[in-house]
Amino acid sequence: MTTRRPKPEKSQGKPKSRKRSRTSGLPPGTLVYIGPEREGPVHITAMTYDRSGVTEFPVLDPEKVGQIPKDHLITWINVDGLQNIHAVETIGKQLNIHPLVLEDIVDTTQRPKIEVTDDYTFIVFKTLTFDETTSEIVSEHVSLVLGEHCLITFQETAGDPFDLVRNRIRSSVGRLRTSGPDYLAYALIDAVVDDYFSVLEKLAEGIEVLEEDLATRADPQMLREIHKLKVDMIVLRRSVWPLREVLNRLSKGDAPLVQKETIPYLMDVYDHTIHVIETMETYRDIVSGMLDIYLSSISNRLNQIMKVLTIISTIFIPLTFLSGWYGMNFKYMPELSWKWGYPMVIVVALTIVSLLLYLFRRNEWI
Amino acid sequence: MTTRRPKPEKSQGKPKSRKRSRTSGLPPGTLVYIGPEREGPVHITAMTYDRSGVTEFPVLDPEKVGQIPKDHLITWINVDGLQNIHAVETIGKQLNIHPLVLEDIVDTTQRPKIEVTDDYTFIVFKTLTFDETTSEIVSEHVSLVLGEHCLITFQETAGDPFDLVRNRIRSSVGRLRTSGPDYLAYALIDAVVDDYFSVLEKLAEGIEVLEEDLATRADPQMLREIHKLKVDMIVLRRSVWPLREVLNRLSKGDAPLVQKETIPYLMDVYDHTIHVIETMETYRDIVSGMLDIYLSSISNRLNQIMKVLTIISTIFIPLTFLSGWYGMNFKYMPELSWKWGYPMVIVVALTIVSLLLYLFRRNEWI
Amino acid sequence: MTTRRPKPEKSQGKPKSRKRSRTSGLPPGTLVYIGPEREGPVHITAMTYDRSGVTEFPVLDPEKVGQIPKDHLITWINVDGLQNIHAVETIGKQLNIHPLVLEDIVDTTQRPKIEVTDDYTFIVFKTLTFDETTSEIVSEHVSLVLGEHCLITFQETAGDPFDLVRNRIRSSVGRLRTSGPDYLAYALIDAVVDDYFSVLEKLAEGIEVLEEDLATRADPQMLREIHKLKVDMIVLRRSVWPLREVLNRLSKGDAPLVQKETIPYLMDVYDHTIHVIETMETYRDIVSGMLDIYLSSISNRLNQIMKVLTIISTIFIPLTFLSGWYGMNFKYMPELSWKWGYPMVIVVALTIVSLLLYLFRRNEWI
Amino acid sequence: MTTRRPKPEKSQGKPKSRKRSRTSGLPPGTLVYIGPEREGPVHITAMTYDRSGVTEFPVLDPEKVGQIPKDHLITWINVDGLQNIHAVETIGKQLNIHPLVLEDIVDTTQRPKIEVTDDYTFIVFKTLTFDETTSEIVSEHVSLVLGEHCLITFQETAGDPFDLVRNRIRSSVGRLRTSGPDYLAYALIDAVVDDYFSVLEKLAEGIEVLEEDLATRADPQMLREIHKLKVDMIVLRRSVWPLREVLNRLSKGDAPLVQKETIPYLMDVYDHTIHVIETMETYRDIVSGMLDIYLSSISNRLNQIMKVLTIISTIFIPLTFLSGWYGMNFKYMPELSWKWGYPMVIVVALTIVSLLLYLFRRNEWI
Amino acid sequence: MTTRRPKPEKSQGKPKSRKRSRTSGLPPGTLVYIGPEREGPVHITAMTYDRSGVTEFPVLDPEKVGQIPKDHLITWINVDGLQNIHAVETIGKQLNIHPLVLEDIVDTTQRPKIEVTDDYTFIVFKTLTFDETTSEIVSEHVSLVLGEHCLITFQETAGDPFDLVRNRIRSSVGRLRTSGPDYLAYALIDAVVDDYFSVLEKLAEGIEVLEEDLATRADPQMLREIHKLKVDMIVLRRSVWPLREVLNRLSKGDAPLVQKETIPYLMDVYDHTIHVIETMETYRDIVSGMLDIYLSSISNRLNQIMKVLTIISTIFIPLTFLSGWYGMNFKYMPELSWKWGYPMVIVVALTIVSLLLYLFRRNEWI
Ligand SMILES: [Mg+2]
Ligand SMILES: [Mg+2]
Ligand SMILES: [Mg+2]
Ligand SMILES: [Mg+2]
Ligand SMILES: [Mg+2]
Ligand SMILES: [Mg+2]
Ligand SMILES: [Mg+2]
Ligand SMILES: [Mg+2]
Ligand SMILES: [Mg+2]
Ligand SMILES: [Mg+2]
Ligand SMILES: [Mg+2]
Ligand SMILES: [Mg+2]
Ligand SMILES: [Mg+2]
Ligand SMILES: [Mg+2]
Ligand SMILES: [Mg+2]
Ligand SMILES: [Mg+2]
Ligand SMILES: [Mg+2]
Ligand SMILES: [Mg+2]
Ligand SMILES: [Mg+2]
Ligand SMILES: [Mg+2]
Ligand SMILES: [Mg+2]
Ligand SMILES: [Mg+2]
Ligand SMILES: [Mg+2]
Ligand SMILES: [Mg+2]
Ligand SMILES: [Mg+2]
Ligand SMILES: [Mg+2]
Ligand SMILES: [Mg+2]
Ligand SMILES: [Mg+2]
Ligand SMILES: [Mg+2]
Ligand SMILES: [Mg+2]
Ligand SMILES: [Mg+2]
Repeated sequence: MTTRRPKPEKSQGKPKSRKRSRTSGLPPGTLVYIGPEREGPVHITAMTYDRSGVTEFPVLDPEKVGQIPKDHLITWINVDGLQNIHAVETIGKQLNIHPLVLEDIVDTTQRPKIEVTDDYTFIVFKTLTFDETTSEIVSEHVSLVLGEHCLITFQETAGDPFDLVRNRIRSSVGRLRTSGPDYLAYALIDAVVDDYFSVLEKLAEGIEVLEEDLATRADPQMLREIHKLKVDMIVLRRSVWPLREVLNRLSKGDAPLVQKETIPYLMDVYDHTIHVIETMETYRDIVSGMLDIYLSSISNRLNQIMKVLTIISTIFIPLTFLSGWYGMNFKYMPELSWKWGYPMVIVVALTIVSLLLYLFRRNEWI
Repeated sequence: MTTRRPKPEKSQGKPKSRKRSRTSGLPPGTLVYIGPEREGPVHITAMTYDRSGVTEFPVLDPEKVGQIPKDHLITWINVDGLQNIHAVETIGKQLNIHPLVLEDIVDTTQRPKIEVTDDYTFIVFKTLTFDETTSEIVSEHVSLVLGEHCLITFQETAGDPFDLVRNRIRSSVGRLRTSGPDYLAYALIDAVVDDYFSVLEKLAEGIEVLEEDLATRADPQMLREIHKLKVDMIVLRRSVWPLREVLNRLSKGDAPLVQKETIPYLMDVYDHTIHVIETMETYRDIVSGMLDIYLSSISNRLNQIMKVLTIISTIFIPLTFLSGWYGMNFKYMPELSWKWGYPMVIVVALTIVSLLLYLFRRNEWI
Repeated sequence: MTTRRPKPEKSQGKPKSRKRSRTSGLPPGTLVYIGPEREGPVHITAMTYDRSGVTEFPVLDPEKVGQIPKDHLITWINVDGLQNIHAVETIGKQLNIHPLVLEDIVDTTQRPKIEVTDDYTFIVFKTLTFDETTSEIVSEHVSLVLGEHCLITFQETAGDPFDLVRNRIRSSVGRLRTSGPDYLAYALIDAVVDDYFSVLEKLAEGIEVLEEDLATRADPQMLREIHKLKVDMIVLRRSVWPLREVLNRLSKGDAPLVQKETIPYLMDVYDHTIHVIETMETYRDIVSGMLDIYLSSISNRLNQIMKVLTIISTIFIPLTFLSGWYGMNFKYMPELSWKWGYPMVIVVALTIVSLLLYLFRRNEWI
Repeated sequence: MTTRRPKPEKSQGKPKSRKRSRTSGLPPGTLVYIGPEREGPVHITAMTYDRSGVTEFPVLDPEKVGQIPKDHLITWINVDGLQNIHAVETIGKQLNIHPLVLEDIVDTTQRPKIEVTDDYTFIVFKTLTFDETTSEIVSEHVSLVLGEHCLITFQETAGDPFDLVRNRIRSSVGRLRTSGPDYLAYALIDAVVDDYFSVLEKLAEGIEVLEEDLATRADPQMLREIHKLKVDMIVLRRSVWPLREVLNRLSKGDAPLVQKETIPYLMDVYDHTIHVIETMETYRDIVSGMLDIYLSSISNRLNQIMKVLTIISTIFIPLTFLSGWYGMNFKYMPELSWKWGYPMVIVVALTIVSLLLYLFRRNEWI
Repeated sequence: MTTRRPKPEKSQGKPKSRKRSRTSGLPPGTLVYIGPEREGPVHITAMTYDRSGVTEFPVLDPEKVGQIPKDHLITWINVDGLQNIHAVETIGKQLNIHPLVLEDIVDTTQRPKIEVTDDYTFIVFKTLTFDETTSEIVSEHVSLVLGEHCLITFQETAGDPFDLVRNRIRSSVGRLRTSGPDYLAYALIDAVVDDYFSVLEKLAEGIEVLEEDLATRADPQMLREIHKLKVDMIVLRRSVWPLREVLNRLSKGDAPLVQKETIPYLMDVYDHTIHVIETMETYRDIVSGMLDIYLSSISNRLNQIMKVLTIISTIFIPLTFLSGWYGMNFKYMPELSWKWGYPMVIVVALTIVSLLLYLFRRNEWI
């Protein structure tokens, strides 16, 4: 399991990536897309809804985002694709989003955070999903601008964990249609945190496999898998820790646009992030213990190898000396002409072997 | 010692488990049982009591939980079995429990926590008991909803550490019958924390056995036992640390339903959780020190093995060379025909052996 | 140096111990003695004193503790022996001590702590002394109940570090006779902390011995001594850290029964506990560094052993081959019949040896 | 990658450095240059600007710094070269800079910090740039004195990351010309932090190279590179951590000279320092995991080597004994004269080899 | 580099030391000298000074310390030698110093701290100097009692880092003569902290030497030097950390006797202690990294040794077997009488050697 950014354009080799250093020295608010190289237009959709009904706008032009018909009270605009700086800028201008906020929206390396003003609340977080085909964690940068009657979400590419939320809006399941955009924001974050649990379960499976392997064999490949697990946990931690802080602030009522009724729900998802973090810490301790077992099993195997070598050597080296001794060609070497010389040597040899075997057994070497 | 969830339905193989990820994208308050696969109906009992007497209701229907005759002032309802979502929902509705609270009640992976509102206090904790037959720590998820005249407890399965508390209610021992449901809640948590000490004592026994083993032998099995001890401590820590925080808040008077007279008792059980935590930290340090001893004893044994090999080799290799030398078949090799050639070689061989033995002894190798 | 509880009744084998789990499920305030198995009656003494004089009561009956003649303003009652639950209960009732406090008094595993009420201040701490005959740290559980005109101390067994304080009361040295029971409490804690320094000095001696040993030899016994030092430090830490917190609260004036004049003295002993803790942390770092040196000296010795083996093998193996070669029995093997064959082989052998010795020296192996 | 101070005067050997200890015992406010030995005059430039235009002063005399024509509202004075104490003192006097501040300006080892008074805000930070030719991080000490209409910057040598900011002033891009000197200070710090990202990317490249190497080979050189990476991260950390604190204080409005409009920008750059720090922590974890892999791959290789030795030895040592045995010269040794003696020995030898190979394969050694 | 207490009286063997445990059970305020055994009288000097001039008193009797002519406003009394308890007590009584303060003055193991009362401020710190002749850090316990018009300093022995301060008073350089005793206290502490930088530079030199050694050789001596460096850093840390806290409190205006004008200077020296601490943390990380390199270089060398052994053994063992084989004395052994038997064996031997050398090279062993 390793971590991957979603859908890089080039299928072979490493995708080119636009790095942070490109923004060096630029005035603040200059939009520069930072992230894996991507192409294609921005894709914009919108929904307006309230108690009375839902209207969907499946395709929207960046220039017309400001003119969505206000059929219903609440508007949710979703933007897929951050690489088209001009489009993002156009959207930002129409919706009165501060240039510094736009800068963070197009910087996919921006860490999760919250910025609260009187007019809007700006939240950055990461979606994490496990890609079964590649065994990789796919991370996506999502920004959320919460206004009084409006919620705008920005994502790197199409595809998100929000479809069940969309269905709940359409079918009027739960409190979504009767609540404000703050509850919608909660529902989206909740869906994202639910996915963290799936990733956590995948990590747990990886740990279980490793633990079974550890009991049967311990080869260098295992160490690489332990390292990969650790790196995956680092990725997860970098996404969850700051999000926990974001939710802590939200559930403490810091954002004026969040209504009092939504706070218990935010506390619930805050509680889930703590659950994720604590489970992760537990995994870290377990993986670290596995590393200790692995390392000592290497040492132990070396001991086994050396024991074999030492037993074989210790038994045969004296015997070899003995036979070499009577292989000497001295003229005057009385034993060689004794009648019982050879049987005597056989007896000596057997005695040596027996004695050594006895000693080895007494020391529990064999 | 390992950790086990109580009574999985399937006796062979790993019990199937309903995982957190099942709740993905569902609206909040949707009840989804998370935990080991279980079947069977919910079992509900109740007691009402006060100074004047006790009435017990050994079997209750989920639909009739709201209509328990109020013979006495205080009502304690206990629910065994969380897998029957419908029953839990029915109970919740009658007793006016918030859907988010019900969601946490049926999620057996929920970490210990406290939620305080004006109407009720909701507490989650874990019971831990040591199963002697399997040498496993059995953990159970228990939820506690404290109302003004009522306490409701939810457990995964039948069987709990509360029987002594029940007897104290029946026989009117101690302050239970003369106090409110907050004191009952204290008594239950106190009984649970008392069990933590039993688990702690089992860990202590495991550590003692390991320490004795360490003095006599140090085989790879030991390392696995150290790892298992560590994992057990992680389980205990995950249960105690958040419970300590819960009790800290309770004993500071944060919950309006907790009466002033109960606070010293809550401080007492809070003190016990600190005791558990500090003892656990001590064990962790000791186990970590044992790991160091184990690892270095492996290294040390390797040294011993190599010393034996080296002593044997160093003594016999020169002798073998010597005898090989006089085993050469050169025609013109004067020593072979000397009269004292063979005795001379014997003397040389004995000199080499003596010298080497002297050197080994001087270097304290033997 | 290891840690021991004082005077176990059974001299051979491990003393039986009454464990915490015995209290499982009991109502709070049920007195249960927890600690090493002991027998015998409780021994009670008392002193009353003030500016005008001292009266001592060398033997007191538990039933009569409440009727000590108030000859002088301040009364100090000392109780030796906690195993007699009935006696402790009797004393507690007469002196109006809360059952929860009594429970902590007879629980010798109770960690150091402070409980402040308007009527009394309850303090738990541990005395530590070094037993020269067994090289063990002996720890004793001491409780102190401070009232307005009265101080009651409870100990596990007779014998304590308070004799010098008693003498200071008798001979009216220092401020004891002119101050209240709060100053007496300070004087007792100060005497206990002074003993911590003695234990610290013993640890320092142990570390010094180990450091010298490390320079000359490094055998597995050392590792056990390092482990024992570490465990001793854990014991000391468990006693000092919470006591430091107790003194911090006392010296901040949290306890209403502590007079303003006593506070500088409490700050002084608080400062001493910090000194103990900092010194201990230093020792921990030093011991941990010693462990690193020990472990690497094992590795280093393995290198030395392997070097000896390799040098011997590398020199003799080619020579042995050489002599084996000319020990072959081929009929047509011209070297064997050369006149200078044998001297030639001698020269070759000497050349090989010289060359190898030169190479070893160049690589600084010898 | 290693860390270097900019442009030391002496190209060979280590540059001489003027150390902190030179200031020992001097009265406070005595200017002593601390840093790498340098010579040459101080170079001073200035810009005055506002909405209406820009005037530049490319060369200024230290004595005339106080008399720059106030053509425009805001003045930015930049001083390159701190080794000329007299010049710095002259400038300081004219601009009313406190001697303690001047002392910190000429101490290039001064850690990043902020000092706020009513008249000025004094900020110290470090620029970091990666020198491609030497693969070294070049660090430079920069001080910034922010007055009401004036900003003074002091650097060690000419060359800085501020040229893009200068161009933005000249071409009136962004808010610089319409804002005060506080915004200029922000722009300079922002440019410096942007450079930290470049350094971070270089570290990331180094880590990637190491990770690939780890997969293919693991030689001692790697360990040195890991160590160098770690030292580089320490340098970066020492620059970023205190700057983060500086920006935290600035963005909380602690400095009266910082206007409310500038605060969101300061929060933005504060956010970037957190990004740098978190990324660095991640790198640290990854590098530490790589060290574990490296160390265990050494152990593993030793196992491989020992396996080869043991296999070879274990196969040949019994064979050598066998042949030595029948190389003995006893007169009465019946096997030697058997007709099938030699074939028998061949069979025995082949049997031994087959058996051993079978055993090795069964144990998965070969 | 190791740490030493200044000038022990006995030149050979370890100096006797008076330990803390001597104070066991004594009433508070009983003066007991704790520190290395010393003899000789106390040496007292004094200066009185103000704007108008300086008067020095090179030798003072302990009994007359209270009667120094008040020629000038500010009086600085310095006491060298703490072993003469009676003298210290006499001085203390005349100057109205609290017995608890005197107790700390004569306890050279007292950690740095500050005690603030309305009448005086009591500060304890440690001077550290590097003794070039013994390569040891010499630490001295200094106490400072700051009154309204008076400063009293106590030291263990004559000799201190304050001579430059004395000269500044005499020659009226800087603000000393025009400021109060609080500024004098600052100047003394500043001089002491300046010396910490010298010690730091010595540590840096030690680290540099070790880093160079690490690149060329890695012998066990190195590990001892690393350990010594670590212990030196522990000593430095124990002196600086608490002093930092002392200066933090002073620079926050906690002490009423410290005037507002002195606070920026105290902040400056506070900043220096942070600098010392951060540099030390950096050194610690670097030294810890060096330890890792050292340990792995030992492992690596073992690998080299084993490789040599394995190559030699693997080449010669089959050859030795081969020659042993044809050294067998079977009557019917056809190869022995073949004409090309011996050349054939030569060819086989060369083939084996070539093959093995090829395999070793392919595996990059040689
Ligand atoms: Mg920028
Ligand atoms: Mg980020
Ligand atoms: Mg997407
Ligand atoms: Mg959720
Ligand atoms: Mg929940
Ligand atoms: Mg490890
Ligand atoms: Mg470890
Ligand atoms: Mg959900
Ligand atoms: Mg949980
Ligand atoms: Mg149950
Ligand atoms: Mg309890
Ligand atoms: Mg208690
Ligand atoms: Mg270790
Ligand atoms: Mg109980
Ligand atoms: Mg305890
Ligand atoms: Mg006692
Ligand atoms: Mg004391
Ligand atoms: Mg003191
Ligand atoms: Mg100075
Ligand atoms: Mg610095
Ligand atoms: Mg520059
Ligand atoms: Mg920036
Ligand atoms: Mg930003
Ligand atoms: Mg490590
Ligand atoms: Mg004392
Ligand atoms: Mg100290
Ligand atoms: Mg001195
Ligand atoms: Mg200074
Ligand atoms: Mg300064
Ligand atoms: Mg290490
Ligand atoms: Mg290590």
